[in-house]
Amino acid sequence: MAKKMMAAVFVEPNRIVLDEKPIPDVGPLDALIRITTTTICGTDVHILKGEYPVARGLTVGHEPVGVITKLGSAVDGYREGQRVIAGAITPSGHSAACLCGCLSQDGAGTRHGFKPMGGWRFGNTIDGAQAEYLLVPDAMTNLAPIPDALTDEQVLMCPDIMSTGFSGAESGKVRIGDTVAVFAQGPIGLCATAGARLMGATTIIGVDAVPARMEIARRMGADHVIDFSKTDPVEEILRLTDGRGVDVAIEALGRQQTFEAALRVLRPGGTLSSLGVYSSDLTIPLGPFLAGLGDHTIVTTLCPGGKERMRRLMEVIAAKRLDTQPLVTHRFKLNEIEKAYDLFANQRDGVLKVAITP
Amino acid sequence: MAKKMMAAVFVEPNRIVLDEKPIPDVGPLDALIRITTTTICGTDVHILKGEYPVARGLTVGHEPVGVITKLGSAVDGYREGQRVIAGAITPSGHSAACLCGCLSQDGAGTRHGFKPMGGWRFGNTIDGAQAEYLLVPDAMTNLAPIPDALTDEQVLMCPDIMSTGFSGAESGKVRIGDTVAVFAQGPIGLCATAGARLMGATTIIGVDAVPARMEIARRMGADHVIDFSKTDPVEEILRLTDGRGVDVAIEALGRQQTFEAALRVLRPGGTLSSLGVYSSDLTIPLGPFLAGLGDHTIVTTLCPGGKERMRRLMEVIAAKRLDTQPLVTHRFKLNEIEKAYDLFANQRDGVLKVAITP
Amino acid sequence: MAKKMMAAVFVEPNRIVLDEKPIPDVGPLDALIRITTTTICGTDVHILKGEYPVARGLTVGHEPVGVITKLGSAVDGYREGQRVIAGAITPSGHSAACLCGCLSQDGAGTRHGFKPMGGWRFGNTIDGAQAEYLLVPDAMTNLAPIPDALTDEQVLMCPDIMSTGFSGAESGKVRIGDTVAVFAQGPIGLCATAGARLMGATTIIGVDAVPARMEIARRMGADHVIDFSKTDPVEEILRLTDGRGVDVAIEALGRQQTFEAALRVLRPGGTLSSLGVYSSDLTIPLGPFLAGLGDHTIVTTLCPGGKERMRRLMEVIAAKRLDTQPLVTHRFKLNEIEKAYDLFANQRDGVLKVAITP
Amino acid sequence: MAKKMMAAVFVEPNRIVLDEKPIPDVGPLDALIRITTTTICGTDVHILKGEYPVARGLTVGHEPVGVITKLGSAVDGYREGQRVIAGAITPSGHSAACLCGCLSQDGAGTRHGFKPMGGWRFGNTIDGAQAEYLLVPDAMTNLAPIPDALTDEQVLMCPDIMSTGFSGAESGKVRIGDTVAVFAQGPIGLCATAGARLMGATTIIGVDAVPARMEIARRMGADHVIDFSKTDPVEEILRLTDGRGVDVAIEALGRQQTFEAALRVLRPGGTLSSLGVYSSDLTIPLGPFLAGLGDHTIVTTLCPGGKERMRRLMEVIAAKRLDTQPLVTHRFKLNEIEKAYDLFANQRDGVLKVAITP
Repeated sequence: MAKKMMAAVFVEPNRIVLDEKPIPDVGPLDALIRITTTTICGTDVHILKGEYPVARGLTVGHEPVGVITKLGSAVDGYREGQRVIAGAITPSGHSAACLCGCLSQDGAGTRHGFKPMGGWRFGNTIDGAQAEYLLVPDAMTNLAPIPDALTDEQVLMCPDIMSTGFSGAESGKVRIGDTVAVFAQGPIGLCATAGARLMGATTIIGVDAVPARMEIARRMGADHVIDFSKTDPVEEILRLTDGRGVDVAIEALGRQQTFEAALRVLRPGGTLSSLGVYSSDLTIPLGPFLAGLGDHTIVTTLCPGGKERMRRLMEVIAAKRLDTQPLVTHRFKLNEIEKAYDLFANQRDGVLKVAITP
Repeated sequence: MAKKMMAAVFVEPNRIVLDEKPIPDVGPLDALIRITTTTICGTDVHILKGEYPVARGLTVGHEPVGVITKLGSAVDGYREGQRVIAGAITPSGHSAACLCGCLSQDGAGTRHGFKPMGGWRFGNTIDGAQAEYLLVPDAMTNLAPIPDALTDEQVLMCPDIMSTGFSGAESGKVRIGDTVAVFAQGPIGLCATAGARLMGATTIIGVDAVPARMEIARRMGADHVIDFSKTDPVEEILRLTDGRGVDVAIEALGRQQTFEAALRVLRPGGTLSSLGVYSSDLTIPLGPFLAGLGDHTIVTTLCPGGKERMRRLMEVIAAKRLDTQPLVTHRFKLNEIEKAYDLFANQRDGVLKVAITP
Repeated sequence: MAKKMMAAVFVEPNRIVLDEKPIPDVGPLDALIRITTTTICGTDVHILKGEYPVARGLTVGHEPVGVITKLGSAVDGYREGQRVIAGAITPSGHSAACLCGCLSQDGAGTRHGFKPMGGWRFGNTIDGAQAEYLLVPDAMTNLAPIPDALTDEQVLMCPDIMSTGFSGAESGKVRIGDTVAVFAQGPIGLCATAGARLMGATTIIGVDAVPARMEIARRMGADHVIDFSKTDPVEEILRLTDGRGVDVAIEALGRQQTFEAALRVLRPGGTLSSLGVYSSDLTIPLGPFLAGLGDHTIVTTLCPGGKERMRRLMEVIAAKRLDTQPLVTHRFKLNEIEKAYDLFANQRDGVLKVAITP
Repeated sequence: MAKKMMAAVFVEPNRIVLDEKPIPDVGPLDALIRITTTTICGTDVHILKGEYPVARGLTVGHEPVGVITKLGSAVDGYREGQRVIAGAITPSGHSAACLCGCLSQDGAGTRHGFKPMGGWRFGNTIDGAQAEYLLVPDAMTNLAPIPDALTDEQVLMCPDIMSTGFSGAESGKVRIGDTVAVFAQGPIGLCATAGARLMGATTIIGVDAVPARMEIARRMGADHVIDFSKTDPVEEILRLTDGRGVDVAIEALGRQQTFEAALRVLRPGGTLSSLGVYSSDLTIPLGPFLAGLGDHTIVTTLCPGGKERMRRLMEVIAAKRLDTQPLVTHRFKLNEIEKAYDLFANQRDGVLKVAITP
């Protein structure tokens, strides 16, 4: 029986390497899953570059697809051999935050039950998914069985990309007949576009400058796609909406420029739904903010997790409401993961997302 | 019959003077009311100082209490002689914004039906309330009869101060058992404190440095009041909440410092409800914003208007749930209004709000 | 200049006849529109049969498509010759009910501003749309310009059928990934099906027994359609959902049987969204109601009206998110309206909706 | 070390007796608490009478106040000796229902994660609180530490009475300025009255016929109390509201008569919030239901549970927003529980709630 496994480990800034680690022990509430497919996220690149700090020696990755190999003694309702995913965010289910519906800010074990981004554990505070095996904490809260009809790649975007992207539209409370702008059409922005479409927006405007992304944006539901390298997106959105602005503006990049543009195209009373991970202070310009008198809402959302969220997202795929496979542009074996990071971090060859199979 | 009236008119920056103006004609949807009591708002001081631009010759003021003297030909459901108030914001009722429930951004007459702050007309885009007579547009949407049992002064805070202050708690979606911080305890902050109390918050923390305001804050419902001139309010709120932070932070001043403090004391997943009128760009600091991953909501609200809002606020007074009369600290005749501005703009003599009677 | 017009008039139970009436005078807030297309609703059949009482001599019909011929003196923002629709429900915009967002229960002119079904005026309390001309009250609240690209028939379902049907899904708060059952697939049930699809439901189950309706149900978005004449729909829905039940059950007929079935398939915590017009008391069976301990919501909705609602629905058509033209199965001239009633009331020849053109 | 304990056990209809049972073993997620105070609920009387079936030999009661004596091996964040309460409803935290925020319909261990009333376990599907010791399942989700300053009796209403009563106002979405009627002023109705008051209702009308309850109703926040034995409450409420009806009607008894009266006093667009446990089918009368066209909401709520809910309710007590001690009218030792049942079931001597101390 194998006691060791291979895992992509953060060594130091600019060094994530494949290394041997012990297969973890399974506590009473845990499950051990054998990873069958996983992927690399933009956040992992921040970790690689040392822009987001994690402990040295940590296994990175938070988007697992796999098979249950061992269940904790207190885990009920699953069986070994079952194909499952878990969300990038793995809430405990029992903290004050969870009981308020604020799963991503789970503070299990803290005094008050709220912890900033506390639900994000994989590849952040505990070992992650870019490995042969993954220990899933609070397994009963987090393991979601994969419908038989769906392949690994069909559900690979559920743990993070779809969940985050859709939440952009959901937190924006998109309604039937809304006009929505989505700033940046990377994997998450594309899923925000798809989410806005799924919720009934009737004019969806995507913004990007990479032709391949702009093309996929249309397939994911955008009615208009603006190439910001050629056209000022604020002006163009105001033109397309005949000066009215949008009901919901989704920020999916994490930059001042996109945040500000989102605010500038927002109609009074509209919602700016922010998904991006920012790396510096943001400025809210006084004019578009209407000096604080615009009845605006700015809402940020960290990837919703938990097994029920995962079930619903897989339902979307199974019901053929959305196909996220076009986002998987490249495939690697786990032992090629350093190559995969190189490609993905440098955004070469039109890469959107990579599939990694141990 | 009087054809002329006295009105406080904006002449140029730093000059609001009492002058004679014609009593306005009454259009089919209008009502003319004889002002019996009105007041001066912080916004009027911005106008006085030239910080908020209005047309020269405009009558200022947006907080009317009065008696109907003439009804437009198409106005139904009121009678001359009736005591009424109208909100500071006078929505049309029929714009797209109004039909979406976004009354303050009313864009009646515009192409799309949304106009930034479009509901604010009195003393902004049309003649205001610091006069002997006031023309109320869209009277059927805006005139709210005063219950007989209530005096003018008892309802004087309804048109703006109570409506705005309460909306800080309402937009923050305060729930039973919440912890709420209110930054600044001027008239609006005091009403935000009262609103949080009315909605069931169980720990309410007010922040100010003026002893009289701190004292009233307790009477309006604050459980704790922090003197920011002596104690760092962020540290103190975190101490009072044992490190947890607040569920809802209400900003009631319009400054970077209070906005930022509100964010710093907010728990993950909490709501920053902003009431202040800002005069420069705002900075969102990266750390307290959790880089955009904190599931935070930032919401701004412009004073809710319309007769139904006014009815509900007067119900609060009539039902003795709140007494706003302690906010009226000084009284002037209309012909003393320049003196009233001088006192109020310079915040002398512990002034909170003044009552002006023509 | 024509002073008379033809109109379908309720004479007595079982007699609606085409008769000559004066073209109405236009008050300051009204608009007169020349009807270019209209239709007959199931409610009109109730009126015909004397099951819903209206005044003798009243013009029936509440689904107008037309052209503005005259605007009231106080009406701003429109021009004569403009193609418009108005909703079946024509709220005033200024009543307490409207200012609460409860447009359909508009009580303009009443003491409290709420009136049961008060927003429904056309063909109920004032002359309706099955005529050459229609007087639209509170025109600024109600007239919605038709985009040039859309034909009359393309927007004919907006005033009532789409607005009501969609509201079934909206009031049910359908979310991405929901399972929804829609009981009855008449025109409104079909639009409820389409609405559930537009809002992101991933399993939509329609119930009917008319093959043509079952066929259209699939085109409108149903994933499954149950023929209740062959299969017990409660059992079948529980089978299809593997015993879980549905998140939202929409009742679109107005009978005890469908109401009860909707409750029986509802999961704990689910919402029964009722659109039907009932004609007798309803029974809530104790067991499916979980004795009142099921965290259930039962919500009823009367067709949302107002110009902003109409604009959004026309956006859905213009954006090609839904095509309601398959619902128009028969066409008549206004002078054939008695024949049209005969066909429609008796549900002959697979009729779904008829288009009537003066 | 004691291995046996005394417990109130359901033997057969009309027989609950104090009997000896083994002190339960503690599983990894459980906690054992020594009961210091508990009480009897109306539901327990249903069980006693055989109207609500439970297994013979089950310990009844679901309102525990106690001290932790033993923690399961996987339980973190508590210590033995800590004073705690748990809600009447003890959700797992990890079922699909819980992850949707529908804690009371928790279906942990079921295929779909939803189970009707599944969160109610104490004294229903597992041994309850009327005993010397109580095993609390999913302890990390359910144990709420009692603030030192509060006595057992001060928090005794939190597990069920306050939580259920408040939820009547919360599910009714009571807003500042609302008019609310509460039908029946037993312990739960009294807490619904208090909840409506806490949320900002300005006219609260209680209905009962027992003078002592009517008296307490006023202390809990009712502005008017109607004696239904002397006055028709529907007529009186319509008179008090000048014909308008109420925004929210709360049913707190579980009878056709009160349910129907609640609907009859509801304004169009209002919410009927039902707390009662019904024992037969309900009839919705066609007229007050406006034939399904009244934009009404009928919502039922089962006592919200979980430690965060308990924390918030204890905050209400600690902050002196409400004192529920007047509800505790009688006190018994556990060995007198049969006498306590006799008093309570027969509603003798003005009993509201009893405190039972082992």
